[in-house]
Amino acid sequence: MSHNSFGHLFRVTTWGESHGPAIGCVVDGCPPRLALTEADIQPFLDRRRPGQSKFVTQRQEADEVRILSGTFEGLTTGTPIALLIDNTDQRSKDYGEIKDRYRPGHADLAYDLKYGIRDYRGGGRSSARETAMRVAAGAVARKVLGPEVTVRGALVQMGPDRIDRAAWDWAASEENAFFCPDRDAAIRWEAMLTEARKSGSSLGAVIEVVAEGIPPGLGAPIYGKLDAEIAAALMGINAVKGVEIGEGFAAAALTGEGNADEMRMDPDGRVIFGDNHAGGILGGISTGQSVVARFAVKPTSSILTPRRSVDRFGQEVEVLTKGRHDPCVGIRAVPVGEAMVALVLADHLLRHRAQNPDAAAEARLPRNR
Amino acid sequence: MSHNSFGHLFRVTTWGESHGPAIGCVVDGCPPRLALTEADIQPFLDRRRPGQSKFVTQRQEADEVRILSGTFEGLTTGTPIALLIDNTDQRSKDYGEIKDRYRPGHADLAYDLKYGIRDYRGGGRSSARETAMRVAAGAVARKVLGPEVTVRGALVQMGPDRIDRAAWDWAASEENAFFCPDRDAAIRWEAMLTEARKSGSSLGAVIEVVAEGIPPGLGAPIYGKLDAEIAAALMGINAVKGVEIGEGFAAAALTGEGNADEMRMDPDGRVIFGDNHAGGILGGISTGQSVVARFAVKPTSSILTPRRSVDRFGQEVEVLTKGRHDPCVGIRAVPVGEAMVALVLADHLLRHRAQNPDAAAEARLPRNR
Amino acid sequence: MSHNSFGHLFRVTTWGESHGPAIGCVVDGCPPRLALTEADIQPFLDRRRPGQSKFVTQRQEADEVRILSGTFEGLTTGTPIALLIDNTDQRSKDYGEIKDRYRPGHADLAYDLKYGIRDYRGGGRSSARETAMRVAAGAVARKVLGPEVTVRGALVQMGPDRIDRAAWDWAASEENAFFCPDRDAAIRWEAMLTEARKSGSSLGAVIEVVAEGIPPGLGAPIYGKLDAEIAAALMGINAVKGVEIGEGFAAAALTGEGNADEMRMDPDGRVIFGDNHAGGILGGISTGQSVVARFAVKPTSSILTPRRSVDRFGQEVEVLTKGRHDPCVGIRAVPVGEAMVALVLADHLLRHRAQNPDAAAEARLPRNR
Amino acid sequence: MSHNSFGHLFRVTTWGESHGPAIGCVVDGCPPRLALTEADIQPFLDRRRPGQSKFVTQRQEADEVRILSGTFEGLTTGTPIALLIDNTDQRSKDYGEIKDRYRPGHADLAYDLKYGIRDYRGGGRSSARETAMRVAAGAVARKVLGPEVTVRGALVQMGPDRIDRAAWDWAASEENAFFCPDRDAAIRWEAMLTEARKSGSSLGAVIEVVAEGIPPGLGAPIYGKLDAEIAAALMGINAVKGVEIGEGFAAAALTGEGNADEMRMDPDGRVIFGDNHAGGILGGISTGQSVVARFAVKPTSSILTPRRSVDRFGQEVEVLTKGRHDPCVGIRAVPVGEAMVALVLADHLLRHRAQNPDAAAEARLPRNR
Repeated sequence: MSHNSFGHLFRVTTWGESHGPAIGCVVDGCPPRLALTEADIQPFLDRRRPGQSKFVTQRQEADEVRILSGTFEGLTTGTPIALLIDNTDQRSKDYGEIKDRYRPGHADLAYDLKYGIRDYRGGGRSSARETAMRVAAGAVARKVLGPEVTVRGALVQMGPDRIDRAAWDWAASEENAFFCPDRDAAIRWEAMLTEARKSGSSLGAVIEVVAEGIPPGLGAPIYGKLDAEIAAALMGINAVKGVEIGEGFAAAALTGEGNADEMRMDPDGRVIFGDNHAGGILGGISTGQSVVARFAVKPTSSILTPRRSVDRFGQEVEVLTKGRHDPCVGIRAVPVGEAMVALVLADHLLRHRAQNPDAAAEARLPRNR
Repeated sequence: MSHNSFGHLFRVTTWGESHGPAIGCVVDGCPPRLALTEADIQPFLDRRRPGQSKFVTQRQEADEVRILSGTFEGLTTGTPIALLIDNTDQRSKDYGEIKDRYRPGHADLAYDLKYGIRDYRGGGRSSARETAMRVAAGAVARKVLGPEVTVRGALVQMGPDRIDRAAWDWAASEENAFFCPDRDAAIRWEAMLTEARKSGSSLGAVIEVVAEGIPPGLGAPIYGKLDAEIAAALMGINAVKGVEIGEGFAAAALTGEGNADEMRMDPDGRVIFGDNHAGGILGGISTGQSVVARFAVKPTSSILTPRRSVDRFGQEVEVLTKGRHDPCVGIRAVPVGEAMVALVLADHLLRHRAQNPDAAAEARLPRNR
Repeated sequence: MSHNSFGHLFRVTTWGESHGPAIGCVVDGCPPRLALTEADIQPFLDRRRPGQSKFVTQRQEADEVRILSGTFEGLTTGTPIALLIDNTDQRSKDYGEIKDRYRPGHADLAYDLKYGIRDYRGGGRSSARETAMRVAAGAVARKVLGPEVTVRGALVQMGPDRIDRAAWDWAASEENAFFCPDRDAAIRWEAMLTEARKSGSSLGAVIEVVAEGIPPGLGAPIYGKLDAEIAAALMGINAVKGVEIGEGFAAAALTGEGNADEMRMDPDGRVIFGDNHAGGILGGISTGQSVVARFAVKPTSSILTPRRSVDRFGQEVEVLTKGRHDPCVGIRAVPVGEAMVALVLADHLLRHRAQNPDAAAEARLPRNR
Repeated sequence: MSHNSFGHLFRVTTWGESHGPAIGCVVDGCPPRLALTEADIQPFLDRRRPGQSKFVTQRQEADEVRILSGTFEGLTTGTPIALLIDNTDQRSKDYGEIKDRYRPGHADLAYDLKYGIRDYRGGGRSSARETAMRVAAGAVARKVLGPEVTVRGALVQMGPDRIDRAAWDWAASEENAFFCPDRDAAIRWEAMLTEARKSGSSLGAVIEVVAEGIPPGLGAPIYGKLDAEIAAALMGINAVKGVEIGEGFAAAALTGEGNADEMRMDPDGRVIFGDNHAGGILGGISTGQSVVARFAVKPTSSILTPRRSVDRFGQEVEVLTKGRHDPCVGIRAVPVGEAMVALVLADHLLRHRAQNPDAAAEARLPRNR
C-alpha cells in the first residue's frame, strides 16, 4: 500500500514538490520491447504545460522530461522506467506570506493537521505540478494500450455554461485554449474567463474523457471494477468534486426503459448497442463500447478577493492569493484526466491478460461507438 | 492485488454467488480487543435485507450472519474475522430462460466477454446479494471507528424528484421504506414507486452519506486520497453511475468566491468553517468537518417491458425480466453506501495511525458540522 | 496489505482457529474455465491429515473440504473460490492448563505481546491446523500450473540423519510414513521416531521440494524474485527456521568454478545445463531447470519434559505439553511445502503472462532436469 | 503489486541500471518530522561503495546521494522521499563481448527468456549496483526505527572457513576489509581472498545480521510473519542461496529439549530468555530478543576461468569475465543485508502501530539479548 503509487500491474509512483529541485515518477510493470523515447512523452506534457496561454498560470516551465532507466536502444526492457523533470521556475518568494496562513479551500490546513509540517512553497506536494508526472506516465500507458486505443478529453462546461453536444467536433478542441469541442462555446468562454481573470476570480469546469477501441473484458467484478477505478483516478485529480460514468447523475431520473442500451447483431456478427447510457462498462467490465467518463473541477481557491481564515497560531486572518494561478484549473485538467483514464486502462489490460491467457474473449469483441 | 478485496489495512475479501450455498467475507486487519458479536452486525443486515417492504425484492432471506473466526469470548483477537450467511431462498428456476440471453444493462454480456463462462442463476457473482457482506463488514468497520463516529445515509432523490433539504430530518429517514429524510417526499415517492412497480418499470435514485465525528488527517495526498477512495467505494456499488463529494458537480458552476469555505476560531480555540462545500475533505485529507458524499443509482435493468438484445449464439432476441426484483435498487443501496464509507474511513484511520504515531495532530482537531 | 493473504494475482486468504467451528480460505484470481471439484483437492488434504500414522498427532479430523463459491458446473468461473473445512475434533479441555502459561518455543507469549489477547485453545490461529487451507489452495494452484508441472516434496533429513541422495526414489517416498525417498533411511527413522515419541521428545527435519516442468521466465528482478518469494513462502510455514535454493548454504564453501552451471545446446536446439547449483533460478527468474528448495523444521516445542517458563501474571512456572502432538512436525510439513511452492509458481505464472502477452519467450524454453 | 517495490507501509521502489545515467529510489510512507539529510544516508553508502579495498570491484563510484523530495528544512514531511545517485564510472566497453553470450550463473539467460531484451552493460538491472539504493533506503528505515534499535551485520564465513563465535567482537568487524568480527579469521581471509583474486577465482560467504532493541509484537501470524519477510528480503539480495533465522538448519538436528528457549522473570519484572535458538521471533512475531538472521552468498560467477556456455544464436561458446568484479561479493553484501533487515523492521513497526493503537503491548516488553 503506497499513498503515492497508482495502479497494480502497470504501476506509477510519483514524487516531488512544486518548489523542490525536480519532480519524477517510476513506471513499473511496463511490458518489454515497446518503442519508447522522450519524444513519445513530451507532446502530452506540452499540452498540460503552464504558460501556454493567458488563461493558465504564467509560471514558465520547460517541462522537459528525461528517461533515466528502463529503456535500452529505444525499447522498454521490462524494468522500471524512471522519468524526471527539473523544476526551473520556482519563485519561492511569492509564497512567504501564506507560510503560516491556511488558504480556504486549499490543502494547507489539512496537511498541517495530518503531518504537523508542510512545505508551503507553491503548495508543496499538493501542487498541481505533480500532475505533470501523471501525464508523462499516461503517455507510457498509451504505448501499452497500442495504437487502436484512443483516449481523448474535452472541456464540456465552464462555469455554468455547457457546450452544445450536437456541435461536438474533436478537431475544434485542438484549436482553442480550452480543449473545447464546441466552437461557439469557446468564443463565449474566452470572454467569460477573461473577465474572471481580470477580476481575480476563478471558474469551475466539467471535463469529459472518451476512450475508444477498448477491448471488452477489462475490469472485474466487485472491487476491481473498471468504473470504480476510473472514479478514483479522476476524483484523485486536484480540485475534482464529482465523477460520472456514461449517463451519470442523469441516470437517476430515467426509467429502466429509458436507460436500457439495447443490443443487436451487425452483419459481421458483432454486438451493436443502440445507446451508451452505460458508458461502455457493465458490471464493472468493459463491453467494447466507448468508455465515457466526466468529472467536475471546482473553481480554484486561489483568488484575489480576501477571504476569512485562520493561521497556525489560531489567529483569525484574511487571505488573498497573489502568486501565478490558473483562473480555471479545469483547462489543464483535460490532459490529466486523459492520462488517468489511460493509466487505469493499461493496468486493467495487463490484469485481464494475467487471468485470461487465451485471446478467445478478445476475438469476440464488439468494437463500436 | 485482489479483485474481490477492499481496503488496505482494514481489508475485506468477499466471496459467493447469488445462488450458491452461502456468501461470506473475511475481514483482515481488525485491531484486537474490540467487542464484537453477531448482534453488532445483524441490525445493519436487517436494514438491507430483501422482503422488508413491497418496494424491494420479495426474495425471502433471513440473512443471519455467523462469525466463524477472529473473536474469542466476545472480543476480536486481531486474527481474520470470517463472516458467513447461508443462502436459503434461491429459486434457480426463475433464471432458466435468461441462461443464454444477455439482459440489456446487466453484467451478463460483460461476464461472458471476460470469462467465457458465468453462473447465470440470479446474476451469480454480479448479484446485489454480494452487498450483504459489505454491510456486514461495514458493521465491523464501525467498531473500529468507535462510537464518536456516525455514518448515516439517506435517499435524497427518487426518479427525478429531489427532497427539500430544508425539510431534512434524520428521524424521518427511519420511518419510511425509502430511507427518505423528507416526510413529504416520502409520501410522493410511495405513489410514484407503486406505479413503477405495478407497471414493471424501475426508477433511479440519489443517495447521500454523511459521516460525522471524523478525525482530521485521514487520507493522504495523491493516490491515497480520502475522496478518491470514497469515490471508488461508491462507484463500485452495483448500478452506480456517479459520485460527488461535498458540492459535487454543482461546484463547476460556482466562482472561487462562492465556493470558499471560510474559517474562523471558536471560543474553545478550534477551527470553525462557515460552509462545507468541500465535503469535509481538502487535498484528499479530512479536515474534521462532516464528510459528505452522494451517489447516483441507475434504474434497474430488470423490467417487464421487452427489450431488444442478443444471445450467446449471436441471435437477436427479446428480453424481459420476470424474477423478483427491486423497482428502485437505490433504496437498498443506502445501507450499502453507509457501509462502504465506513470501510474507507476505518481503513484510513489505521493507515493514519501507522504513519503518525503521536496523537498530536488529533489533539488539534476541529470537529463540527 | 493483508497479514493473512498470500500471493498477488493468484491470491489466497485464510481464516480460522484450531478450535473454532471451521477453517477456510478464499482463492481469488483463479483463471476461469479450469475443471475443479472437491475431488481435485481432497487427495492433497488427505496426505496432510492428522491421525494417519502413529508418528503424527492423533487428532481425528475428516478434513473434508467443501467448495462454496467460484465454480459452476465443475468449472472455475473467475470469481473467488471459497473453501471450507469444518473442525470436528476439538478437545478444548486439553488446553485449559496452558491458558495462562507461555510454552517455550511457542507463539503464546508473542501473541499476547502483540495483541494482548489470544485464543489459547489448540494454539488458536498459530496452530498448524491453518496449513490445511494452504494445502487446499495449493491444489487449486496445481490446476493453474497445468499437468506439465509437477511439484513434489520429500523429507531428506530427520534429526541429524540425512538420506543418501544416491538412493533417492520418488516412489519410495509414498511407501513410508515419512515421505522419505530413501528406503534405508525410512527404516532407521522409524526406530528413531518411535523412541522420540515414547520419551515425549521431538525431532527436527529438513524437507526438499522439487518443481519440474516450470516454464522459464517466471519471477522478476529485484523484489519479485521467484527465489525470494519461495523463501518467504517456506519460512512462513510453522516451525521453519531456514530455507535454501539449489546449492543453498553449501554454495558459500564453493569457488566460482565449482558453482558454475555450464550450458550447452542439445540436438533439438534447447539449452542444457550441466548442473543445477542454481536450483533452477538465476537473477530471480526461472530458467526452465527444475526449481529445488529446501527448508529446515525445528523440533516441536510440545514435549513432555518440563521446561522453565513464565505465565501472564509474571510468575515463574514449569510447562510440559500433554495434548496430542506430532513428534516430528516436519513430516506433515512436506505437503505444506509442496503447496506453498505451487502457490508461488501459480502466482508468478499469472504475473508473467500479464507483462509478457506473447508466448515468444515460452517457445524458447529449455525444459530438463 | 510491483516487482521493484519493497515493503508495504514503509515502501521503497528502486530503479536504474548499472550503466544508465543514474540509479534512484522512492521511499514512500515515511512518518513526518524525522530529521533527515544526505549526511544521515551517506555513511551507509560509503560502507558499501566499490573501490574501497583491493578485495572489492575497482569500479570508482562516488555514490553521492541526493534527496530530491520529501524533506523540508531538514525534516521529513510525510511525502515521498526521492533519492538519486549519479552513475559516474560506467565503462561500457568492458561488456561488449558478452553482449550476446550468457555467462553461466548470471541472470543473462534468464532476462532474455523473460523479456526477450536486456541491457547487457554491466548486468543492467541485475547488477549489484542496484543494492546501493537499498542501503540508502535502509538508512531512512533506521531513522524510523529510532536510536534504540541497532541493526549490524558481519561476515561469519568466507569460503569454507567459519569464524570462532567465541572471538566475536563487533569492534573488530570495523577494522578489516571483510566486516569480520573475529580478528584471527580476518587474517586468514586476507590470504585466502588474495589468492582467489590473483587466480581470477571467487569465494562464497555467510553473513549474519543482528538487530537489537526490537520492540516485541512486530510481525504477524500466517503471511505477514517477520521471519518470512526477512527471509524474502535476504534471499532477494543478489547471489544469495540460503537464509536462516536463529538456530537455522542446525535446529533440524536438535531435540525439542535442546531447542527450547526457557523463560524466567528478571527482578524488574521482565521476561528473560535462557537462549535464543528462535532468533528473536516466535510464531512470526518478535519477542523482544535480538533478531538474528544469516544468509549464504554464492561465489560470484564472474571468473577468469573459461566456462562452457551458449549464446543468443544457439551457438556453444566459452565465457570468461574480464570486467571489474568482487572476488567475494559476500563482503559488500554485509551493509546490504543490514539495510534489508532494517527495511523489514521499519515496515513492520508501522504495520504494528496501525493495528495496535495503544502502547500497552510495548510497555510489557522484555528487551534483552
